[in-house]
Amino acid sequence: MRYRRIPDETVRRLPVYLRGLLFTSEQGQGNISSQDLAELVGVNAWQIRKDFSYFGDFGTRGVGYGVEKLATQIKKILKLVTVQKAALVGVGNLGSALLAYHGFAIYGFDIAVAFDANPKKRGRKIKNIVIEDISNLRKLKRRKITIGIIAVPHQVAQETADKLVKAGVRGILNFSPCYITVPKKVKVITIDIAMDLARLPYYMPAS
Amino acid sequence: MRYRRIPDETVRRLPVYLRGLLFTSEQGQGNISSQDLAELVGVNAWQIRKDFSYFGDFGTRGVGYGVEKLATQIKKILKLVTVQKAALVGVGNLGSALLAYHGFAIYGFDIAVAFDANPKKRGRKIKNIVIEDISNLRKLKRRKITIGIIAVPHQVAQETADKLVKAGVRGILNFSPCYITVPKKVKVITIDIAMDLARLPYYMPAS
Repeated sequence: MRYRRIPDETVRRLPVYLRGLLFTSEQGQGNISSQDLAELVGVNAWQIRKDFSYFGDFGTRGVGYGVEKLATQIKKILKLVTVQKAALVGVGNLGSALLAYHGFAIYGFDIAVAFDANPKKRGRKIKNIVIEDISNLRKLKRRKITIGIIAVPHQVAQETADKLVKAGVRGILNFSPCYITVPKKVKVITIDIAMDLARLPYYMPAS
Repeated sequence: MRYRRIPDETVRRLPVYLRGLLFTSEQGQGNISSQDLAELVGVNAWQIRKDFSYFGDFGTRGVGYGVEKLATQIKKILKLVTVQKAALVGVGNLGSALLAYHGFAIYGFDIAVAFDANPKKRGRKIKNIVIEDISNLRKLKRRKITIGIIAVPHQVAQETADKLVKAGVRGILNFSPCYITVPKKVKVITIDIAMDLARLPYYMPAS
């Protein structure tokens, strides 16, 4: 199935919608209106209708969107249908939280391996994943791992990215508070867990 | 200073720009072009120019945008100029990572207090913050805390939100993997740390 070229800003919102739809589906609800979805996920209803129109789903008047169908469609567009294996580098507080987090599975991600530079952590197990020494990082391609997740201190973020690229990953999720550069063949998304907090005061009513 | 009404999607990108500008400033760079900022933060240059035009900054041809001036302007718009005190609830892996994270300070946030339901954690100290018992949660207003950060298991997320609202916070950052409902006078932003990973495969080149 081919879709019209979808703007980056819509792509940015698709996981937000997907999460809301999966939640709605869990609640046993078969259809949802753009208004209800809007309220759930915090995006305007007109924006939702516009975004969904890119892949030709206009819903049914008075019934809304089919929850399961739409979730499947978004998963296809985002290429989340086949499970993607990821390697986590850095098992500090954030890395441990990421390993323990259930949320990756619903998007079809499997953190299959974790690395840490601290030899004391080697062999420790979190959620069935044994922490390996960072020197094993070069064997990723053989293990069918396509994604790297960086959760190391910012001083070593770039060299970690270099190692991941060399090991053959095609995508990097960077949680380190710095920007990293990679070759064009690799896609990086940098996350700042503090960044969303920065939107909050704008919307907060005056006391 | 008054600004034109800024669309939510622009507000969503302002922290992204702010982070890039603060990084650029740290590197000792006084000006930046929309192209260079685009490359740094991963948003299209035309989108950046359009977003900045909402608050009347059109940059200077051949020179670009003044980094410091623009950062200050964005901070003002986002109401990040005065320090906001936040309370963290839930000091598990994610909560500990949030406490240890330096990133909040650059946006003007101060996690001033942390709570946990586990009595064993009471009195422990992370980055000068003593973990308090959850029963102290009601005294927030007196302590000038306006923001609550929820990092508890999803089963207790709603009741934690209720407690925070009762204690007088006006904004909540929710890291629990579920949606919570609050009165209209309180703004909630729900974060899913896995969500950004869901955008990655869409952009990853085929192997």
